Amino acid sequence: GIKENTVVLCSHRAPAAVLTVLVLTEVSRSGGQSYTQAAVELFKHPHVLLLQVRNCVFKLPGGRLRPGESEIDGLKRKLARKLSIDEEGSGLDWEVGECLGMWWRPDFETLLYPYLPPNVKKPKECIKLFLVKLPASRRFTVPRNFKLLAVPLCQIHEDHKTYGPIISGVPQLLSKFSFNIIEP
Amino acid sequence: GIKENTVVLCSHRAPAAVLTVLVLTEVSRSGGQSYTQAAVELFKHPHVLLLQVRNCVFKLPGGRLRPGESEIDGLKRKLARKLSIDEEGSGLDWEVGECLGMWWRPDFETLLYPYLPPNVKKPKECIKLFLVKLPASRRFTVPRNFKLLAVPLCQIHEDHKTYGPIISGVPQLLSKFSFNIIEP
Ligand SMILES: [Zn+2]
Ligand SMILES: [Zn+2]
Ligand SMILES: [Zn+2]
Ligand SMILES: [Zn+2]
Repeated sequence: GIKENTVVLCSHRAPAAVLTVLVLTEVSRSGGQSYTQAAVELFKHPHVLLLQVRNCVFKLPGGRLRPGESEIDGLKRKLARKLSIDEEGSGLDWEVGECLGMWWRPDFETLLYPYLPPNVKKPKECIKLFLVKLPASRRFTVPRNFKLLAVPLCQIHEDHKTYGPIISGVPQLLSKFSFNIIEP
Repeated sequence: GIKENTVVLCSHRAPAAVLTVLVLTEVSRSGGQSYTQAAVELFKHPHVLLLQVRNCVFKLPGGRLRPGESEIDGLKRKLARKLSIDEEGSGLDWEVGECLGMWWRPDFETLLYPYLPPNVKKPKECIKLFLVKLPASRRFTVPRNFKLLAVPLCQIHEDHKTYGPIISGVPQLLSKFSFNIIEP
């Protein structure tokens, strides 16, 4: 089942990496004391952690990989830079879990597909989403032009217009982890 | 990576079970000889096996579980009945794999969600999708009012109107299995 401290990451195969954080608002805000209460609440309301750029575009934390860099290394580097307390992100360890999904960009057009379209041999870009576990509580410090938001799945689901194809599809990719929600 | 002989199943928690079959048309049509060629082709074009009811509604093979019946037993029973050569489905074994996703129906309304909406404690229905492996080749015989179709992912993706939310989301749920497609 899903943990109360779960993050979703994403790394591009060719250049970039993107990540999502599934966390209750209370956890990210308070940083400790409210843990028990937050964990219980989360069973009802899983939230995805999103970065908002200049009050408009929503993004999953992440970015492009460096040449030769492994996906895991790239993800950790991006996580440290975008979601850490200090500039270096030292002392934080990110437990990168399973790949949840992938998106392909066949050429220089902007459209992304969750499969490699027929006859595309060399896609321009490949984006991978990873599941990552967070410690039970954590404070985040984000770059100045970013805002960190915990958004409930119900708000994201199928809202392509606001969140784009990748983020709006995250609830579906997470659905198999929700078993425990309806267990007695 | 994805196997050339992969099926996706789905089972409802409360009553029903649904399944998808990922298979190349050639495999299901010919049943043996063209295997090598088909396997190569599939790397370019994964297809989902769908049942079409009376030339209109598309369905993933599956259905409701009996009271007390396990998901795996229910899936095998439904697979045997809807996709088998003989009425009993004898001699066929279905290797049910991982759960890919779940959908909830909160009450008697028709909308499905890939998460349990806040404050819903007893959903009316829960639908699970499973990945299942097929033997390298197989012939299918379907009930008289059904037509069996192998539909490419590109045709299904985001076509909510034609295929509904569950089927149109299958390409995304399968995307993480597509690694091999772009491996050298
Ligand atoms: Zn990218
Ligand atoms: Zn909520
Ligand atoms: Zn149902
Ligand atoms: Zn095709």
